[in-house]
Amino acid sequence: MTASSLAVQDEDLALVTDLYQLTMLQAYFKEDMDERGVFSLYFRRLPDSRNFMLACGQQYAAGLATRVRFSQAGLDRLAATGRFDHDFLAWLKDYRFSGDIWTLPEGTPVFPNEPLMEVEAPIAEAQLLESLIMNQVQVETTLASKAVRLVIAARGRQVVDFGLRRMHGVDAAMRGVRAYRAAGLDGTSNVLGGLRHDLTLSGTMAHSYVLAHNDEMEAFRQFAKLYPGTTLLVDTYDTLAGVDKVIELMEGPDAIQVGAVRLDSGDLGELARGSRERLDAACFEQVKIVASSSLDEYKIAELLANDAPIDVFGVGTALGVSTDAPVTDLSYKLVEYAGKPCVKNSPGKVNLPYRKQVYRFRDIQGRYQRDLVSRREESVGEGEALLAPMVKAGEILEDSLADLETIRQRVSQSIEDLPPDLRRLEAAATPYPVSLSDELKRWQQD
Amino acid sequence: MTASSLAVQDEDLALVTDLYQLTMLQAYFKEDMDERGVFSLYFRRLPDSRNFMLACGQQYAAGLATRVRFSQAGLDRLAATGRFDHDFLAWLKDYRFSGDIWTLPEGTPVFPNEPLMEVEAPIAEAQLLESLIMNQVQVETTLASKAVRLVIAARGRQVVDFGLRRMHGVDAAMRGVRAYRAAGLDGTSNVLGGLRHDLTLSGTMAHSYVLAHNDEMEAFRQFAKLYPGTTLLVDTYDTLAGVDKVIELMEGPDAIQVGAVRLDSGDLGELARGSRERLDAACFEQVKIVASSSLDEYKIAELLANDAPIDVFGVGTALGVSTDAPVTDLSYKLVEYAGKPCVKNSPGKVNLPYRKQVYRFRDIQGRYQRDLVSRREESVGEGEALLAPMVKAGEILEDSLADLETIRQRVSQSIEDLPPDLRRLEAAATPYPVSLSDELKRWQQD
Repeated sequence: MTASSLAVQDEDLALVTDLYQLTMLQAYFKEDMDERGVFSLYFRRLPDSRNFMLACGQQYAAGLATRVRFSQAGLDRLAATGRFDHDFLAWLKDYRFSGDIWTLPEGTPVFPNEPLMEVEAPIAEAQLLESLIMNQVQVETTLASKAVRLVIAARGRQVVDFGLRRMHGVDAAMRGVRAYRAAGLDGTSNVLGGLRHDLTLSGTMAHSYVLAHNDEMEAFRQFAKLYPGTTLLVDTYDTLAGVDKVIELMEGPDAIQVGAVRLDSGDLGELARGSRERLDAACFEQVKIVASSSLDEYKIAELLANDAPIDVFGVGTALGVSTDAPVTDLSYKLVEYAGKPCVKNSPGKVNLPYRKQVYRFRDIQGRYQRDLVSRREESVGEGEALLAPMVKAGEILEDSLADLETIRQRVSQSIEDLPPDLRRLEAAATPYPVSLSDELKRWQQD
Repeated sequence: MTASSLAVQDEDLALVTDLYQLTMLQAYFKEDMDERGVFSLYFRRLPDSRNFMLACGQQYAAGLATRVRFSQAGLDRLAATGRFDHDFLAWLKDYRFSGDIWTLPEGTPVFPNEPLMEVEAPIAEAQLLESLIMNQVQVETTLASKAVRLVIAARGRQVVDFGLRRMHGVDAAMRGVRAYRAAGLDGTSNVLGGLRHDLTLSGTMAHSYVLAHNDEMEAFRQFAKLYPGTTLLVDTYDTLAGVDKVIELMEGPDAIQVGAVRLDSGDLGELARGSRERLDAACFEQVKIVASSSLDEYKIAELLANDAPIDVFGVGTALGVSTDAPVTDLSYKLVEYAGKPCVKNSPGKVNLPYRKQVYRFRDIQGRYQRDLVSRREESVGEGEALLAPMVKAGEILEDSLADLETIRQRVSQSIEDLPPDLRRLEAAATPYPVSLSDELKRWQQD
């Protein structure tokens, strides 16, 4: 175990790839195949429980793409596998991405067959990046797409990320907080993630704190004295008795102000009502109710449909790994090589050739009405062209980058602009209409 | 975006935590609560589709635990939140874990209520580590527990990890390969993961390589010439026609040796039979068949039940995120403080107090028969005590560490030793019997 083993350093970034990328690269090198290839990153289909995905992570992936280099240590490790020869390794030493990347703006709702990214470069350069780009765009897009459903379900109540402990490793936890901020979550318990991605840090207390004290009241008093206005966790022994203690704490001569109580077990709707009644009866209408414990978008919607007086939802497990759709059918496919179309015919895995553009059409109220996917150069009349360049000749176009607040606003507006049926948590009666241009249509198969 | 943003450096490790850990730490500091606490990491219950979990990641997590330090940069960031005062931050600056950690050996099948780890230290030190330990043990245990099901389903055929692109970030991909090696997988496509954790690198070619060539035969010839004995991907256009081309390539005066063909779409069982027939008829019995495309343990079992002549299974999506059980009900609970038992009564979340030991009893054939969870010091007679110290007074006990090959052998033997009903992919008729010692029994609740 080395001191840096939690990390993947930039010098190792080039090895975050699948072996076949490197064996194909060596083949391209030996065959002098260095014409430009275009790879398109898109969803073949959406998970059953998603009416749209929220494209996220392209900026970060594009940034990584421009930074991939092979270190001497990395090349030595590859040499030691016996699979690569000297000439090729010398060529890898000089590898740097010299191509172009077009992306859909982050935070844009995306549908099947619409490229989130298109990478165009001498074929080997673009091929190498497949695994890293997919890994990184996949995680942010998956988690942003889950988070936005929580935001929709919460109808304006706050939603806070408690998922760090349930997520798949530390990189996921960092990418996740970025995705959650983009999707509109209100806070996170993840300290490093929140600090890195400027999402409000949020936290209460654990049961262990209560248990370590002689009694619950003592724990509440100590904690609230140190953190006036804090949230107290009231379910360690008996939730409503816990609320009574909080009220006791807030009354009398040595009264201490408490901001909220947190419920973390039992029937959250019933306990929230009971807590609210007690708090209101004691004239603490300003004290909020935070609920957590196995929440997801469906449970939040159900709680609110039953008028549960919950102000803040803390979501861990379901959010942290997007439990119902932890993975997507994202593809990174060669669609063009040396200017010629590339199409594969494998059953159920047909792809559309050529580099593309996505046009989004709005109705008279400004709502999304339909999309059209075309060849990039094809003339299709009106519609908003969504794909734009982010990397040109291996360099990030700084003007193309959006800050997270901009992306968050874009998401918020996009959700407003979606057809209402698509905003629902359940599968839409009809999927969002995405049609193909005339030039692409002839490649379409069953 | 900084140059190290894919990484979490050791200097940031202390901030990979939930905010409430730090606010509780400050409270413990202010209250002079520095007695020893014991936290127990265990499953409250198993995922529905798992008869056991394979404990994995404890060594790595223990190593991280001993390395957590607050850097000045980290402390400055915490100070800037306005939540922490100077005295406490000065105390954090000197933070280092001084306690003990006991662990179940990695690769051990584990059941509900059995601690995978117990962390004992002045309460603040052990509290801080909760989020990081859970995050890291969770990901390795989840992925090892999925991987071993694939190994079981494959009944001796090879299983190879193709999951990098579908996994949640790069840390998951690195921890995952370690877990896969422990669980008995035969290879991985993940270059850095395989190099770090000494798992055989495996890879074939992508459709893009075939598509970039003028025709499939040309692609096959070039690739096989460069890599004699390689695997050729035959489904880009028509699988069986692809196999015919491979046979053509292996015949005649300029014959090139091919090691395997890979099927990646369609009815894998039927296509494997068709491929095998063609290869055998041409006297290429030695050429193997690799299958991939949305495989999981159930599909592998079904293919083999139907005698599909597949030699190697490449598994991506289902393995990479453990699709059917991407998350577990892992808890890290305070069970003892200052020598006194800690028990919480929240509905459905009751915990058992005191630091513990797990005893495993075997039948006369050496098979696991039942487990007994007791207080650590309790005398229970016979049985193999599973928990052992790994960290003592903040230092790793080097003798306690097992190398990955040892862990892999332990897994392999453990699977043999499980009651046959628990080795099945389906839920066992009766769960594995785990009973409580007399001293723990009286704390048990519904």
